[in-house]
Amino acid sequence: MPLRGVAILGSTGSIGCNTLRVLESLGAEKFRVVALGAGRNVSKLADQIARYQPELVSVENEEHGEQLQAELLKQGVSTPRLVTGEEGLIEVATHESADCVVSATVGAVGFVPTLRALEAGKRVALANKETLVMAGELMTRAAAKSGAELLPVDSEHNALHQCLRGEKRSEVRRIILTASGGPFRTRDRAAMSSVTVAEAMKHPTWNMGAKITIDSATLMNKGLEVIEARWLFGFDAEEISIVVHPESIVHSMIEMVDGSVIAQMGVTDMRHAIQYALTYPERYPSELPPLDLAQLSSLHFEDPDLERFPCISLAYRALRTGGTLPAALNAANEEAVQAFIEERISFSDIPQVIETVMDGHRTSDVTNLDDVVDADRSARAAAQAAIKQLSREVRVTGVA
Amino acid sequence: MPLRGVAILGSTGSIGCNTLRVLESLGAEKFRVVALGAGRNVSKLADQIARYQPELVSVENEEHGEQLQAELLKQGVSTPRLVTGEEGLIEVATHESADCVVSATVGAVGFVPTLRALEAGKRVALANKETLVMAGELMTRAAAKSGAELLPVDSEHNALHQCLRGEKRSEVRRIILTASGGPFRTRDRAAMSSVTVAEAMKHPTWNMGAKITIDSATLMNKGLEVIEARWLFGFDAEEISIVVHPESIVHSMIEMVDGSVIAQMGVTDMRHAIQYALTYPERYPSELPPLDLAQLSSLHFEDPDLERFPCISLAYRALRTGGTLPAALNAANEEAVQAFIEERISFSDIPQVIETVMDGHRTSDVTNLDDVVDADRSARAAAQAAIKQLSREVRVTGVA
Repeated sequence: MPLRGVAILGSTGSIGCNTLRVLESLGAEKFRVVALGAGRNVSKLADQIARYQPELVSVENEEHGEQLQAELLKQGVSTPRLVTGEEGLIEVATHESADCVVSATVGAVGFVPTLRALEAGKRVALANKETLVMAGELMTRAAAKSGAELLPVDSEHNALHQCLRGEKRSEVRRIILTASGGPFRTRDRAAMSSVTVAEAMKHPTWNMGAKITIDSATLMNKGLEVIEARWLFGFDAEEISIVVHPESIVHSMIEMVDGSVIAQMGVTDMRHAIQYALTYPERYPSELPPLDLAQLSSLHFEDPDLERFPCISLAYRALRTGGTLPAALNAANEEAVQAFIEERISFSDIPQVIETVMDGHRTSDVTNLDDVVDADRSARAAAQAAIKQLSREVRVTGVA
Repeated sequence: MPLRGVAILGSTGSIGCNTLRVLESLGAEKFRVVALGAGRNVSKLADQIARYQPELVSVENEEHGEQLQAELLKQGVSTPRLVTGEEGLIEVATHESADCVVSATVGAVGFVPTLRALEAGKRVALANKETLVMAGELMTRAAAKSGAELLPVDSEHNALHQCLRGEKRSEVRRIILTASGGPFRTRDRAAMSSVTVAEAMKHPTWNMGAKITIDSATLMNKGLEVIEARWLFGFDAEEISIVVHPESIVHSMIEMVDGSVIAQMGVTDMRHAIQYALTYPERYPSELPPLDLAQLSSLHFEDPDLERFPCISLAYRALRTGGTLPAALNAANEEAVQAFIEERISFSDIPQVIETVMDGHRTSDVTNLDDVVDADRSARAAAQAAIKQLSREVRVTGVA
């Protein structure tokens, strides 16, 4: 394999840091870190710059840029070319030395940069599922036009990619996403509204960022993955199933027309999927411990409870309707999750906010970037209104 | 797909009957039954002739041939060309209208006919694992020379074939055969010698013939499959593992160099594997119910107990030594199983007979058919002597 340049959008986050560990373990003769895009975690970015010496870095704004320069000066590290804001992140995503772009920012921030990377024909290792949820059609169209490869880093979609390697699309009956079920898999329906932020942050199997951890608790994460799967692999809503599997060892499955099920399994470490997305179609030895099924002893499976986890049905509804509705769902979810983390609404208010926004959303086709941005903006405003309404109700109830 | 002619060696056995059901469900425009090889089950063969109208049939000997003709006369069905004995079975295996030969006889009977089918360039759907155990090198060499395809019908190897479809051999770290563990998975070591034939015939998940059911109880079946896997897929003994999985839902797995595990799952119905072997590289819809993991609820895994099931280690030993030793192991096992079924030796005597035969066997290279036939013959004689010795001991102990 020739030396490949890698740019990382979201280098200081969980996926970003794991990507750097994977690149390091694969060796400098295979991959070179050429550009890093971060947000506000200036001290971690400074460490990464010192270690990997990228040609280009981006931070959220000028202020963080100045902090970064001060930090680098203190460490005696020379500053690489420094850019800021969304334009800066786009520069990172389209850096000419980058063959592969790891898109791992949280939420909608990575949307436009990822699109630009695909338009530029880069391989995109996609960990930012919101990108495909918001504008799967735009993204896949851009990739098809430029010939860019889109490789999923989400363990479930990465698993599906692996399962589908030897199979024909026409011979796949359905794909089956596994879901850990989150921390409230066995919680009573009545007790769902009293869920605290601290409880929701305790994910049973994966250690991830705040937004995705809450999404895993509401199972909206799985709903978003259903939409993501549609765009990555071209399956309709009816051809995508979810099965709850608390151990998260089977990362996902495909069911063939002859009834055969192909599953991908592994230890719950996202470095597996990251490495696969970077090295595909080749596989390289991993330093991670192998899966020991005998030691695990048992794997469990159950159907998801759509009553206690209404976010799943909301996502299916958005996928079936299509157009701008998935973008509205995604925006409403981001706002609702943020409001929950800030303790402005309860856990069970999250799906309520999203449903209110979806009910009020006027779905239109997605023909260009503006359609998505407009849907995102109006859904966020509607979500804020719904959140304000709900938090006022809470306060009134609290007073009464 | 053009119409394919199918010949079945062992048409009245479990795999043979299921093959006919699969062919019927796939439809007459895809497959035609052209030749059937049976043993002594004349009445079932007569029914099959009436239903499928093959051009050629074979039975064990002249006597059964006469019985068959009488039976067909009674039913008013005209007799197809009728042949007998091993030569007859070879005619069935090499019938000019047969594109695919399902090799499903029990034990060593199918050995030469299967080799001839491979030499004739037929696709062989192989359910007779003894064939590869006895002479994997001869078989695979013949297939390579004629360009014949060898497709496994054993659910485990069929699963491995499916898992390996999209992967490079060099990127597979090991293959993992699953084993149900048989009816004595949880039985005390001390109680193993008192196992009755009736107990051993109760297989927890599969409904099969007597020989393979006993092999499943001793786990020799899994040992034979380890040797079979070596020849089908080219893995060494160190690259083949066994994990006990009582539910038999995961049919087998491969572990890639990057730690990823690809598994094939399905309901426990051998028609899946038969259909796959017949239709590969295409997959056709199956009428079997899909796998419902949520309903199954849990899957279990444990390491095999090599102390209670010494047949596994005997098989690994035969594979590591190579040459004629696997053929000797196979012959000794067939004789020992038969003696156990006839209640001449105890259950725990089976591995003892095999070990005695292996210890006394002078292993040589397999360069031609005679090497295998000689090893088979001498091992059977040695096994008979060991069995006689053991049954005498039992009688003496019984008297004392």
